[in-house]
Parts: sequence; C-alpha cells; structure tokens
Amino acid sequence: MVVTIIGLGLIGGSLGLSLKQNGFASKIIGVDNNPNHTKEAAELGIVDEVMNLEEAIEASRLVLLAIPVNTAKKILPSILDLAKPETVVVDMGSTKLGICEAVANHKNRQCFVASHPIAGTENSGPSAAFPTLFMQKVAIICEKELCNREALNLAERLYKSMYMKLIYMDADEHDRHIAYVSHLSHITSFALGLTVLEVEKDEKTIFNMAGSGFASTARLAKSSPQMWAPIFEQNSKNLSSVLEAYIDNLKLFKKHIDSGDSDEIHKLMAGANRIRKILD
Amino acid sequence: MVVTIIGLGLIGGSLGLSLKQNGFASKIIGVDNNPNHTKEAAELGIVDEVMNLEEAIEASRLVLLAIPVNTAKKILPSILDLAKPETVVVDMGSTKLGICEAVANHKNRQCFVASHPIAGTENSGPSAAFPTLFMQKVAIICEKELCNREALNLAERLYKSMYMKLIYMDADEHDRHIAYVSHLSHITSFALGLTVLEVEKDEKTIFNMAGSGFASTARLAKSSPQMWAPIFEQNSKNLSSVLEAYIDNLKLFKKHIDSGDSDEIHKLMAGANRIRKILD
Repeated sequence: MVVTIIGLGLIGGSLGLSLKQNGFASKIIGVDNNPNHTKEAAELGIVDEVMNLEEAIEASRLVLLAIPVNTAKKILPSILDLAKPETVVVDMGSTKLGICEAVANHKNRQCFVASHPIAGTENSGPSAAFPTLFMQKVAIICEKELCNREALNLAERLYKSMYMKLIYMDADEHDRHIAYVSHLSHITSFALGLTVLEVEKDEKTIFNMAGSGFASTARLAKSSPQMWAPIFEQNSKNLSSVLEAYIDNLKLFKKHIDSGDSDEIHKLMAGANRIRKILD
Repeated sequence: MVVTIIGLGLIGGSLGLSLKQNGFASKIIGVDNNPNHTKEAAELGIVDEVMNLEEAIEASRLVLLAIPVNTAKKILPSILDLAKPETVVVDMGSTKLGICEAVANHKNRQCFVASHPIAGTENSGPSAAFPTLFMQKVAIICEKELCNREALNLAERLYKSMYMKLIYMDADEHDRHIAYVSHLSHITSFALGLTVLEVEKDEKTIFNMAGSGFASTARLAKSSPQMWAPIFEQNSKNLSSVLEAYIDNLKLFKKHIDSGDSDEIHKLMAGANRIRKILD
C-alpha cells in the first residue's frame, strides 16, 4: 500500500521506518515544508519519494498526519477536500478535541480517523526516528463511530502492524486524561529545567551534581517547543486545572517542609508511592 | 581491610557488593536494626557477618554510615566515641550541614569524613542493591580540612575503588546545590504521582495512557518515605526557596496557558531546552 506521511519528524520518521520494515507500506511518500527534513528523510531511508501535498494525496491510499497539532487542525480540512472515497486520513496528534471539531461537518469526515499513538522521546526531527518507537505501546482512537468501516479498519491494521494496543474513547475524554498523564509531565520537566538553570548559573555544578534522578525528571525539558506549545494551547482548559491541582500539592509539601512536619511529609510520599502499582 | 556497613538498604547493600567484588574489603560486617535486612543481606552475600554496633566498630578499620540522615546525625557522635585513633567513619547521607554540625566539636572529629555519593534508584532495601550502582558517578566530600590525612585518604581510595569521580565543597554549599539538582526532582515527582492518583481514580486509565514520559517524570515518586522525609527535614531552608522558585515557574506556565500566549510558552520551553547541553 502506498502511504503518505505528512511531517517527517520523530513520529512521522519512525512511522516511515516502521511501516517499511514490517511490510505494511509498499511505498512511503513524504511531505514536509522543511526542505532539510525531506532531504534528511530521503537520506535516512524514511521515505521513497518526496512530493507536494496534492500529488501525495492523489497517489496514496493512506495519509498519516504527524505535524504540530495547530497546523494539523488547520490543514486537515483541505486534505479531506482532496480525499477520494477510498482515501483514509489518520492524524497522530497529542490533542484530539480541536481537530475533531474542525472537521465535524466536513463532507469527507468519514475518511478521517482521529488517533494518538502514545509514543515519543525528547528528541525531534528525522534523525531522531527509529522503527521500534511504537512497539507494544498504546494507540488511542477517538470518535470511531464517525469513521466509515474501511477507514477505521485500516487505521486499526496500521497500528496493529506495529504491535500496538488499541483503546477507544471520546475526544474530550482523551484530552482530559492525557493532560494528567502526559502534558503535565512535560510542564513539570520544563519548569524543573528552567528553575535549575536560573539558579545554577554555573552549569558545571549541575553537570557534576545531578544524578540519574535529575536526568529522569528533567529529560522532557529537552522536548521541542514547536511541537509542545501548540499542544498546551489546544488543551489549555484541561491543563489549567491540572496545573492548579499540581501546584496545590507542591504547596502542601512546602507547607509541611516549612513547619517541619515530617509525619505529614511522610504521609504525602506514602500516598505517592501507590504509583508503583501502576508503573511497575 | 575489614569494613563495617551500618544500614543495609540500597546504598549500604550496594557498597557491600561492590567493595567485596573489587577487593577493597576483605570482610564486610553488617549492622542494621531491622532483622529482616540483616537476614536478607547475609543471604544475598552483601555481608560476611552481622554484629551489633559496638562489636562492629571494634572489629573494623572503616565504618560506612548508610542510614536515613536524621538517624545518622543522631548516632554519629556515639560512633565517634567508640572510634580508635585509626578508625575512619564515612557517612553517605544526602544532606551534609546537619551532620557536620553535630560532630563539629567532637574529640574524634578528624576520624570522620562527610561525603555524599550521588547515586541511587527509586528502590530500597537490601534486595534493591547492585554492585555497579556507584560506577562512574560523582562522590562529594565536604569539610575535608577537618579530617586527618589518613581518614581523607582512605575515603578517597574507597570511592576511587568504585570508579567514582571526587568533588570537594563546603557542607552548606553542598546542601544548597543538592536541593536544586536532587531534592527538588524528588518533590516534583512525588507531587506528580499524587496529583495523577488523586484525579485518575480509575488506575487502569493511568496505566493505559501513561507513556514513557510519565514513567520517567514520576519514577522518583516510588522512593522511600523513610529515607526522604528526613532529607527534606534536614534541608528544609534550602528546599523552601527552591520550591518557591519552582512554583513561580509553574505559575508562569499557567498564566501564559490561561491567556493563550503561545509565544511566551514557546520562550519558556526554549529556555528550558538549554538543559540539553548538560544532560546530553
């Protein structure tokens, strides 16, 4: 099957490598408005051919959208304008409500599958791509009842071909949960990176004294602002209440630390320890 | 050399395994007031013999203190009371000012080396120990001018035998920096775990939707309250201002998310991205 990938960064690039390796795609067409990305993607064997958007959609059965969520929302209607009855368009963005609303009344809505493969690293661009990124991770499909059977079926086959587990939910439900279990993590990490850099002007000190704990909690602070600023914007309402809850918990820690109440600090940590059940 | 390890958890246990494997210790004596720990440590080959504190100090040249920082501060004076002129006592705690002050005027102060090997995981107890925990990590030695030459030399040889890099600084300087690059990370993680658990009552949702980013930022929320509550207590002044700075940065994110100012969010993230220079 000929597959077009729009956006040749970490996600799009890894899709290209993975779908060629597992045989799902017979040919990968790449679309990216950054000429460095298309060049690099061709060199890395991520794409077989580079085309412009119109040509690519005309030439392929499956179109995968792996670009920042604001751009995805903006261009999806015109992609669906170009869709033939058998075209299937699957987006991969980290927020789902905005993009679903943008095409809710589009005549070709049934060709579109709103999804979110929960996979990524802190790195970006075609050179960050690797074929096993998605393996055994979860992919969420939203509003499956609005896709036609062939579109849904193809999207499911796509994710299953990479050994992903499928989950279905509403778009607003997705955005609410993902604010807690993904978007918040990124903000905690960005803020941690900022705080330490602001205070420790001598970066050698951070380098020398930071252990694996700091590396693990600050890793996501390396993530791409181009990708994440639009996500925070699109999911601002959920994120705002999530951040409020998080700041409240930090204030609770601060209060007990200030008053020297070790028992209360102990209780808070013991409560947080329950995360072990989920992570282990 | 006969080495006593007081506290047979992750740190003490890993010291035992490491120092036997590399030949630094001819015999490891274990002291722990938890009988399950001594039993387990003996079964795991961490210690050759279990003794009470007095016997152990009498029988060994080097005494390593790997217990929670409040207990370490409390019992160090009586350990130094028992020290012979050639005894060397090294503590491994994550806060240094309190313990240094506790023995500042002790007649055997010169036998004591205040240090902090920056190594650990989120796991605890003898079964969490492994011999390469310290390898190529940094160990900090504080107030080296207050140790006699033999004590300092032995502590340096100890850490070098495990391929650690040595750094020297004042105890208050250590506590100030470590609040940012280690203690804060733990609080961000505990608070993240708590926040998500409070909201996502259905733990299956977290399990299904949490990706590697959440796992990485919430990992430290599994850490032992027994170890960490005393650290936060001992370093409360530094931690209080660190937490204030961190909360301020989170509020800044929240403000720009609430007002939809993507440019400002972008700027904050780009600033945080500088952490890449240090972590990579």
